[in-house]
Order: sequence, then structure tokens, then C-alpha cells
Amino acid sequence: MEYTNWSIYSLNHETGKKRQSQNALFTVGNGYFGIRGFYEEDTASEAGNGGIYLAGVRSNSELGGRLFEDKRRDLCNIMNILRLHIIVDGKQINGVDNITNYRRELDMQGAVYTRCYRYDDCLDITLSRFADMVDVHRVRQDATLVADKDMELTFRALIDSDVHNLNLISREPDPVQPGLNHILSREIGTDSIVTLIDSEDDNHIFAAGQTVLTVNGVAVDGSVYTNDFVSGREWNLKLKTGDKVELRKIVAVYTDNDGTDSAQKIDEFLTSEINWDEIDAAHKNRWAERWANCDIEVDSNTDDQTALRFDLFELMCVCPTHTDRVSIGARGLAGEQYEGCVFWDNEIFQLPFFTFTDPESSRRMLAWRYHGLDVARRYAKYNWFEGAMYPWQACEKCREQTPIGGGGYYSIHIISDIAYAIRQYFLATQDSEFMFEMGAEVLMETARFWASRADYSEWDGYWHINTVRGPNEYDFYVNDNAYTNTMAALNLRTAKEILTKMETEAPEKFAKLCTKTNFSFAETEKWLAIADGLYICYDEKRKLIAEDSNYFNRRFLDMKKAKPTAKRIVDSTMNHEWLPFYQVTKQSDVATLMCLLPEKFSEAEKIAAYDFYEPRTAHDSSLSYAPYAWLGARIGKDEQAYEYFKNCAYLDIADLKLNTISGLHFANFGGTWQVAVFGFGGASFTDGKLTVDPKLPKEWNGMTYHLVYRGVNIEVKVTKTDVTVAVQGGSLPVCIAGNDTVLSDENSTITVKM
Amino acid sequence: MEYTNWSIYSLNHETGKKRQSQNALFTVGNGYFGIRGFYEEDTASEAGNGGIYLAGVRSNSELGGRLFEDKRRDLCNIMNILRLHIIVDGKQINGVDNITNYRRELDMQGAVYTRCYRYDDCLDITLSRFADMVDVHRVRQDATLVADKDMELTFRALIDSDVHNLNLISREPDPVQPGLNHILSREIGTDSIVTLIDSEDDNHIFAAGQTVLTVNGVAVDGSVYTNDFVSGREWNLKLKTGDKVELRKIVAVYTDNDGTDSAQKIDEFLTSEINWDEIDAAHKNRWAERWANCDIEVDSNTDDQTALRFDLFELMCVCPTHTDRVSIGARGLAGEQYEGCVFWDNEIFQLPFFTFTDPESSRRMLAWRYHGLDVARRYAKYNWFEGAMYPWQACEKCREQTPIGGGGYYSIHIISDIAYAIRQYFLATQDSEFMFEMGAEVLMETARFWASRADYSEWDGYWHINTVRGPNEYDFYVNDNAYTNTMAALNLRTAKEILTKMETEAPEKFAKLCTKTNFSFAETEKWLAIADGLYICYDEKRKLIAEDSNYFNRRFLDMKKAKPTAKRIVDSTMNHEWLPFYQVTKQSDVATLMCLLPEKFSEAEKIAAYDFYEPRTAHDSSLSYAPYAWLGARIGKDEQAYEYFKNCAYLDIADLKLNTISGLHFANFGGTWQVAVFGFGGASFTDGKLTVDPKLPKEWNGMTYHLVYRGVNIEVKVTKTDVTVAVQGGSLPVCIAGNDTVLSDENSTITVKM
Repeated sequence: MEYTNWSIYSLNHETGKKRQSQNALFTVGNGYFGIRGFYEEDTASEAGNGGIYLAGVRSNSELGGRLFEDKRRDLCNIMNILRLHIIVDGKQINGVDNITNYRRELDMQGAVYTRCYRYDDCLDITLSRFADMVDVHRVRQDATLVADKDMELTFRALIDSDVHNLNLISREPDPVQPGLNHILSREIGTDSIVTLIDSEDDNHIFAAGQTVLTVNGVAVDGSVYTNDFVSGREWNLKLKTGDKVELRKIVAVYTDNDGTDSAQKIDEFLTSEINWDEIDAAHKNRWAERWANCDIEVDSNTDDQTALRFDLFELMCVCPTHTDRVSIGARGLAGEQYEGCVFWDNEIFQLPFFTFTDPESSRRMLAWRYHGLDVARRYAKYNWFEGAMYPWQACEKCREQTPIGGGGYYSIHIISDIAYAIRQYFLATQDSEFMFEMGAEVLMETARFWASRADYSEWDGYWHINTVRGPNEYDFYVNDNAYTNTMAALNLRTAKEILTKMETEAPEKFAKLCTKTNFSFAETEKWLAIADGLYICYDEKRKLIAEDSNYFNRRFLDMKKAKPTAKRIVDSTMNHEWLPFYQVTKQSDVATLMCLLPEKFSEAEKIAAYDFYEPRTAHDSSLSYAPYAWLGARIGKDEQAYEYFKNCAYLDIADLKLNTISGLHFANFGGTWQVAVFGFGGASFTDGKLTVDPKLPKEWNGMTYHLVYRGVNIEVKVTKTDVTVAVQGGSLPVCIAGNDTVLSDENSTITVKM
Repeated sequence: MEYTNWSIYSLNHETGKKRQSQNALFTVGNGYFGIRGFYEEDTASEAGNGGIYLAGVRSNSELGGRLFEDKRRDLCNIMNILRLHIIVDGKQINGVDNITNYRRELDMQGAVYTRCYRYDDCLDITLSRFADMVDVHRVRQDATLVADKDMELTFRALIDSDVHNLNLISREPDPVQPGLNHILSREIGTDSIVTLIDSEDDNHIFAAGQTVLTVNGVAVDGSVYTNDFVSGREWNLKLKTGDKVELRKIVAVYTDNDGTDSAQKIDEFLTSEINWDEIDAAHKNRWAERWANCDIEVDSNTDDQTALRFDLFELMCVCPTHTDRVSIGARGLAGEQYEGCVFWDNEIFQLPFFTFTDPESSRRMLAWRYHGLDVARRYAKYNWFEGAMYPWQACEKCREQTPIGGGGYYSIHIISDIAYAIRQYFLATQDSEFMFEMGAEVLMETARFWASRADYSEWDGYWHINTVRGPNEYDFYVNDNAYTNTMAALNLRTAKEILTKMETEAPEKFAKLCTKTNFSFAETEKWLAIADGLYICYDEKRKLIAEDSNYFNRRFLDMKKAKPTAKRIVDSTMNHEWLPFYQVTKQSDVATLMCLLPEKFSEAEKIAAYDFYEPRTAHDSSLSYAPYAWLGARIGKDEQAYEYFKNCAYLDIADLKLNTISGLHFANFGGTWQVAVFGFGGASFTDGKLTVDPKLPKEWNGMTYHLVYRGVNIEVKVTKTDVTVAVQGGSLPVCIAGNDTVLSDENSTITVKM
């Protein structure tokens, strides 16, 4: 991959899996659409099949495994709404053969993906697209073709419903099987297609296109073109050398998820007049606004600037802004792995980025969890517990999608992770309305879950949370995972605090909530007893937190032997069932905890944990590098921290996990942001005060980052010699290197020499 | 089921699965053959397909699951060597329709299975068979038909190779799939068939029959009858009312496993003269000899006598006497569940019966383990350990057949179970030849395994055996399972003791062994350190051994809620992954340990363990009742002990586990014997001395049992009032109710009033 400040681009015309992998990198989106960087004109290969996903649009799947409530949902490749047929002198171009001057580029400022090449030394082709950030139901497509000889050109701009899922989720050496076809039926209209995709909800997808084609600036009417699968326009053109053909197309998509008037909206769209330039400009403006609140400028002789921007760009592409009925899956809308399901990735890794740069988006995604509260209550009951048991792997309907036997029963830290994100959002926004309408109820029901899940042991006098799987997924289950217990304790305490606050500040809402949930403060005595009494195995001598109560007794694993290559241990040297015998941590576990709750651990404990766990961590998950980079930066492991940062920032760009093909790693993107801002940038908030204590990597001369906190826009500029904080929109206590001040619109900037 | 003293019989003409289940109960065998009680004349139904298995004759299987050394072996239904066609006036009898006066009976004294009925009110049929206990390659079949009207009878006695596996292993509600056909090719001869069944070894099965048919005592020659699948004889007879047709048939079977001269042996058999009466008499004599050494006579108004005899009978039927290259599978040769594989069932549950009644058979089966030592060494290395790691689920080639991920890695108590059985055999026989030729090497290599598997923890100062699955298979893995640790310690100590003894008593063999294995006594320091230092979680206050180091911290499980019916918990109320969260013991675990090593635990500890674990035990395995009965009997839980004994003794007869259909539960048979002899009968041996301390159930007036110990035949007769011990063949110290004496051939009997 090559880099400019605001784009990544490739000059290599990749084929096969490598192309499919790059297609994931060139994904554009707007939170409604996720569109992989496939070739619109490639009707020949599997890769040309496309890869367009809609947030929350999923279908029943035939995948195996017995499930809670028995239904598995699959992200589906809806239609190839950007299909082009380009036929030169009777020969159809597939975007692959007879190509020179190939280049594809992702412009992250304008959020446009462009691909250009010269075909057969006679036709220069430029194809671009973006997912409209203003009207998220729209996708814009442009094509420019310049003839370099006289030719007959047949050109078709279509919506193509002959697609199936890409199914790029198998790991080598497993063969990749053809993906499922989720389209149950289709109705082909003029310039439009309606498909039915979901046997559970009868969800219809309505897609329609408006197209304008000009030759040398003069519009040419196309004829209607349809067959059993496609609908669109066709032009048959006789071109002379130098002729320039330009296509502009807008596709609008609605589904039954969007309301009952989707058909009507499509009709309106088809008869509406398109102001092409305005759409373009509005989209660019919206992106500029987003970047203004979140961009990180890096002064460095590396590509880190661009890598970092790529990560933030994709996070913004996948973030739903149109509804609070969806959230972000582990691979977002950039691939099908994990069937679009939402894990703790979102609350712990991704949400902080939004909470501190676009809090409304965090609010929407936390509201989605609130809407899933009844499912979580049912799931708790199903598992013989109380309160709300949020599922480890949630489909868009918030149901557990981990197959029974897959460890969903054990992976309960997700529950306190949601509580953590609610707490973090509230601390960063003071959004009492959200808290008292939604957050408090979630906190209460998750606290009730923990109260029913923890056990007091007469045997040792502690409370225990047994038989859990912590962040380290190489354990099937352990007892008293430090991460789980600490986060559960926070969940219990936060619930008590918020409910106490709510009783005072919103007594009517509180009374209503109590009636609805049959809550009384008597319950909270047990909550606090558990929070205070949970066992955490700790080596006083070494100041070392044990990942779980038996970790210290396990056998040391020589990581050189276990992981000689980038392949995951379980894909190369060891059987999964061996792993719980060893001190092996699949992904950062205690280190993650220390990043999330740094105030709970001393510097000595952090160093001890880093030194002990780092050599025992396999990093066989994309959720591992960021916490080590972040923690490392905070405790003076400068070189390692920067190395880990590189692993985060370039994880997908360099395909470090060998599985970018199946979707981007959004948790890692969020983690990268946290490393930059909290780790290197040194921002932290305590009781409403911003502290900046930067730890710049030596490879960086400086960085500038932007935050939003309690309504105040913050810019922090760090150089090798000083730190400048500037605020806008309110007042904010700030502390830099011991210098306390309160910034406000009147006194908006402070610079401190370091 | 109905009972006489020496037989079980059924007058119910069962159909469907019930018939298939009863077919398992009517299994006869001789350690070479296992022959289910199928209907020879039923060519119509799946059940008539047969079910004849040969010890050690297995085939590559298509069953799934990645395996150590990648090959799965399947027990195979070889051929229906007893196939009959009975055609009355053109209509073929299937043994099912038009039947009256039905009765089938298993005579356990003569070891003959007989089925008789009247067909269509015109033909009385009696069919019987036995597996010859003298020449184990032979099966005898008899048929008597008495006409009650004039009729045309076509009668065929065949060997039928058109069979496939029964595949009765699925649990409800899973549908039963047709079984695999393991026959790769077949060659049909006159009165013989040779099949090829094994793609790994090219194993041929040679079967041939000799047949004599008489009508009213006059021999009638049959014509040769063959087709693509069968070979045998046909008779076309015109019978008059009262005519009696009698068939006698001997089938001989050899395989390539038996040597390279199987074809020749078949030829010899086909030309040999059969002395029918002699065969019959020799078979009966051999059985009488066996019964003399092991029978348990029960004086009681119950059916316990017969149930107990059934259990011992089937143990003898499955015991290989012809080779030391096979052992006994969990379901023996009575069904296909577990594909004929050998588990700890054999060493811990079955072998004691043989060790104390037929030690040569124990020796052979322990030798089979010795022959598997190299595989066990490879398996240890494969798993990154040293020494010999015997597989949890061993095919006839001693390879691990537990699929990877199925817990074979954790289920390592099998290794010390083998060492325990070797030690027990040696204590009971003083067979130094076996010990120094084979046993010592196994003990050494298994000790080495434990030395490489145990970890010393600086953290708590103990040795640990982590990440194991103990007898309680509802745990995926635990740490420091008390059973595993105690048995491993014994293994380590026994190895040291035996090697020390060997150095003195067989210095040349010892030197050879040291060279072969690179052994020196320096290794044993670590062995003893581990044996002394292994952690066992123990509640001093309650005198309670913890099943594992976390059992006390788990949540109590209400067994009424978890197991409302006889169905296994995991088949009814709970998902398997929930179980490690609860104090739930699938099958006796600590109780089993206390039975095996009673001297290591105080009476108080045994009572504490019984009272604590008994309500926590689901008995979701057939290996659970016997230890509770045995331990219960020893500690005064008389009524419960007897209840548990009934569960053992009648487990298959009453189909208590709902899965007798897929084979008999041989471990339970062995367990039942131990309950009777060690539990109720109160026999125990310490340093060569027999102690008898009976605990008769109140339902029994008395019992007599027989043992062989260090070459001495022992009879113990217990009544409500006194105990009589008689010996034959040597001298034996005996202690009854504190009365010590030495019995010998001169002074062979003692009676003590209790």
C-alpha cells in the first residue's frame, strides 16, 4: 500500500485472495451502507460478486450450532447496486484482464474510492463511488471513460440482484465454500429491484437508481435494460478517439427496517430531480465536520499519519447515524466474519472514540443495548440467572449468536463492559436524560445479573465469579478472572451510585423505574458486599495481579516454540485443548483492565503486569496490541509501545492477522485511537478535569488531537517541547505537568513547556 | 425379563428398538466372538442384519473428528454367519410375524442362547447358538423344526455377507442413521466366504460352515446355495405332520489378525470331521470350570442371584482368552457404541473380576497395554510430555480415538489406572515374570509421564496436576482432581518400588531395561517429591476431600431441578457448558477413589465424602452406581448401598441407562462384582492376608463367593450368623472378625461366628 497524507492507494493489480483482501481495505460506508472495494464491472469472478451490506439487515442463516432462541442471523450481501457492464467492440471488460496504469485509491478526506486503469491500450477508465454521508440511503457512483481509438461501446449501469454471500471467513487451509444466497425472491422494476431476504421478518430491500450519461458533455438517453436479475440502463455508443463518456448514478436503498413507506420513498426518489453537485459538496462538508472533531495530526517521517487516519476513517464509515436500532459488528460492514455480530469490541474498543469525538453516536449505540434489555433478561432467565445477561455475540436483534457449547455462557465480561461504556459515556457527557431514561435500567439489571452470578464461598470467605472466560479466549473457562471481577465490581458500584443519584435528581422517573423493575435499595447491600468481597488473586511480593486464580500455577509456555510465525497458535503448533494447561494469554487481558481503569493500579503493578504478561501473550486476536501499546506508553516502555502501536495502526493495511479478507478489525481501529490519544497523547479525565501527560514516541515530532468533552471542543497540540490545549464551547479545568487552570471561551488556550 | 437361577428369559415378543435393546442382552461370546441375540431368520428388518463382532477386528471409519495419528477405527459387524432362510409353502418366515408361544432364553450355565416359537400354528421352531469356549474360532448353531401340518419347507443355512453396522449409538431424539458397510470386497466360496474389511491393514475375514440336517433323525444332503453375498446349503423338503427337522451347524472364523494361515485353517476345518457331541460337552465343561472359580451364590428371595450371574456371564463372554493383542471395549462385543474402544472401564472396573478369579486373563489384557507402550510414548511426545501417555479411548492398536477437542488431553487418570491395575494384579498373583518383562516398563514410563505432567508452583509450594478431567466427565477440566492426584502419586511410588525390587530380584532384566529406557534411579527423586507434594484440597473441619481444587467454591445444584427423570442432565435440562459452574458430579469420583484405596482414608473421611457427594452425583454414567454401593456398604449406608447395588446389577437387564441397545455396560458388570465381593462380601487383601468383614444386605440371607489369590482357590461363605473360609491349592493367612489364622490344604477351612 502507498500513502499520501489523506489517502491510501495501490498500484498493484492484485488477484485472487489478495484482491479480495484489498477489497476490504477500500470499503466505504456511511453507517447505513458498507461497500467493499469490489470491481463493479467484474461479472466473471467470485470477487466481482460484490459485498454490500446494510446495517441491521440480516437474514436467517443455515449455519450450524444450537442457539439461544434457535435462530441464527447472517449479514447478507444485499445486491450489487453498482454493477457496470462495459463492452468494447463486443468484448466485455472484467476489470482484470488487459489492464495497464492500474491504480486504486481511497480518499479519506472526501470519503471517495476511485479506481482507474487503461484497458487494452485503448480506453482509459476511472470509476469512483461514495456512500452519501448526508442522506445515508444514497450511494453515488461515477464513471469516466475516454476512448483512445474508435470503438463501439455498450455500457450498462445496473442494479444486480444475482449475488450471494462472499463467505471469505474460512481460515486456511480450509477451502472457501460458496456463500449463501439470502435472496428469497426478487421483483424487477424499471430502474429498481425489490428483493425479499429474510424468512424471519419478511424484510424487503428496495433499490432504485437514477442515471445520467454524457458523451463529451452531451447527455445521451439510455434504454431500459432488465433481465431476471438486473435492472438499469443501457447505452450503445459509437466512440471516436478522444471521446469522453461520463456516467453519474445515484442509488437509493430502503428496507422494511426503515419504516413502512420504503416503496413510496423509492417512488419519490425515482421522480426527484438530482442536484449532482450539491450532493457531492454536502457529502464533503459533512466529512470535514467529522474530521474537525476527531482528526489526529501526526508530525513524523513515517506513514503513521495516514495509517491512523485510515483507522478513524473506517470507524466513521461504519458508525450508524440514522438510527439507534443497530450497532457496529466486529468486522463492521466490511466483511461477513462473525455474521455482523456485536461483541465487547464495540463498548470497550470502539465506543471511546465516539464518546470523545461524536458522543451522539455513542448514545445511539448504547440505546441499542437498552433496546436489547428484554432479550438480555430472557437470556439471563434461560441460563438460570437474574437481571440482564447480555449476549457475548449479539445479532442485530440483540440475541445470543454464540452456538451453545461455544462459550457464550462463560464470556460474561461483555455485561460489565456495557456498563463501563455507559459510565464512560455519562462521565464524558453528563447526559442525564440518557442515563435516567435508559442507562440506569441497564446498570440495574446488569448489577442484578452479577448479584445472581457471584457466589460467596464459606470455604475461603470470598465472593467468586467462577467459570468465566475473560478477555483471554484461549481459556475455555477460569475462575475469578481479574478483568471480569474488577469490571463486575465497577458495574455493581456504578449501578448503586447512579440509582442513588437518580432518586435525588429524577425522583419521578426513579419511582417509575422502581415500579417497572420491582427495585429497592435493599438489593444494593448484596451488590456492594460482592463488589467489596470479590476474590482477585494477587502476588503481594511481585505486586502482580493474576489473570485468574490459577494462572500462576500453570506452566510457562515458550512462545518461540508455540508461535514461530504470524499464524495463530491454534492454527499452527498446538491443539486448542492444550492451552489452558499453559500460561498463555490469547489477547491482552490484565493489561486491558489496567488501561480501562488506570487509577485502580499502582505504577509498580502496571510494570509488573506488563513484564509478566507480555511474554505470555500470543496476540492471536486483533484486540491485543492496542492495550499493550497504550499501557506500555504510560509506564515508560516507549519502544515496545511504539512497536505495538505500529501493529495496531497497520493491522489491516498490512494484513498482519492474515484475515483482513473477511472484514476490517474495528475494535483495533478504536484501540489505535485510544493508544494515540490516551497512550501517546496522554489525555485523561478525572472528575471533569482534563489532564494531559504526553508520551510521544521518539519517531514523532509532535501530534495534535481533538476531543469533545461535556460539550466542550478540545484541541491538544503536543510537541517535543510543549503542550498546548485549546477549548471552544464551554469551560474546562485542565492540568498539564502540574499546572492547573480553567480554560473557557474567554481564556481558551494554555501552553506549557514540558 | 424373567428369571430362573441360571437363566434370564423373555416371553414378550418385542419389536423395534425394544427388540434391538433385548438383542444386546442375549449376547453370547467367547472373547473372540461377540454375537448379539438377533433373529437368524429375519432378513427383512434392520434388526435382522445381525451384530457379530470379533475382538480386535476393526476397520477404518468415516466418522468425523481430527485424531492423533489421524485414523479412526470402527468395530465392524463382520458377517451374519448364522443366517437361516425358512420358507414354508413358499412364504419366508421372518421370526416376527405370525408368531405364538414365543420365548427366548439365555442359559448362563451352558452359555447357550435359545429362541423358540410356533409359526402360523403349523411349525414349532427352536433356534439356539453358542460361541465355543474351547475352540474360540467356532460358533455352534442348532435349529429344530417340527411340522404340525403337511408342508413344503425350503430351508437354508448360510453365511451372509450382506451386512452393515447397526449404528444404534445415537441418543434420542437423534434419528438413527444406517450404519457403515465395512466390507470392501467379498469372495464367495462353497460353504465359505472371504471378505476384506480394513483399508489400513487389508484384513481378511475367512468364514466357513459345516452343516448337518436330519429329518426324523435321517441325514439329508443339502445342495450348495450361493449368490453375490451368501454361501451355504439349501434343502427342499416335503414334510408331513409330526416330521422333525434338525440342523446342526458349526461356523469357523479366522482373520489375518490370527496369523498368515487362516485360509489353510479354513480348508482344514471344511474337511475335518465334526464330533458334535464332544464340542457341546467340552464347551459346557469349560464354562463349568469358569463358574467354579467365580460364581457368587446368593441366598435371597430376590432375582439378585440371576442378575449378578448375568453380569459375570457377560464378562466371561467378552474376555479374550486366545491372545494378548486385544482388550475389552466399554460396550464389549455387544454393540457398537464407542466403536469398541477401551477406556479406564477395563482396568478399574473389569480387571479386578479377572484378577481375582481368572488372573491369566488379566495378564493378557495388561500385556495388551504393554504392547501399546510405544504408541503411548509417541502420544506423550505428540502432547509435549515425556514417558508414556496412554490414550483415554484406545482402539485395538492402542491409539487415541478421542477426537482432538474431545478432552483426551485432559483425561489422563487412565494412565495411573493402568498402573493401578498392574499393581493390583501383581499383589494378587506375585507374577514377577509379567512384572519384570512388561509391568515394570509400563510403570516406569507412566511415572515419567506424571513427572513431566506435574508442575511445582513457587506460588503455593505444592505440586499440581492441572487441567485434567477426573472421573467426573461433566467437567471439561479442573485442577488437582483428588482422584487423579492420588492415583498418580501411587503410580509414581509403585514405579519406584517395583524398579527397586527388580534391581535386586532380576538384575539382568533390570540392566537391560535401564539400557533400553535410559533409566536411572536419580529420576525417582522427582517422582517421590511429586508423590509427596501433590496438592489435594481438603476441608479439615469437615474431613472432606475436594473433588478438585475449586469444587467447594462452586454453586450447589438442585438435582431435583437438574435431573427430574432418568434422562441425563445434558439430554434434558442443562447445557453441558453450564455444568462446570455447579457442584455436579456426572459419575462417582471421590467415592471411586475411596473404593480403590480404602486404606488411605479414614472412616470419617469416607462418611463425609459419601454424604457430601452423593446428593451432588447425577449418575449420568454407568460407572457411578457401583462405587456408591461399594463405599456405602463399607460405611454402614446399608439401604442406600443395596439400592445402588440394584442399579448396578439390573442396569442392562432393566435398561436403566436407556442405552443398552447400543451395547452392554461391562464396567458396570465388573463394578457389580466388586460391590458383591468387596462391598457386601467384605473381602480385602493386605500384605498377602485375606480379611473378610461382610456387610450383607438385609434382603440377603447369605452369599458364597469364590476367589483366586496367589494361586490359592478361596471359597467364602457368609450367612447372617457366620463366615466360613475354605482354601485349596496353597496356604493363606486369613482374618475374620479379629480371628487370625493360616489356612492351607491341611487345615483348609475356618468358620467364625459373627
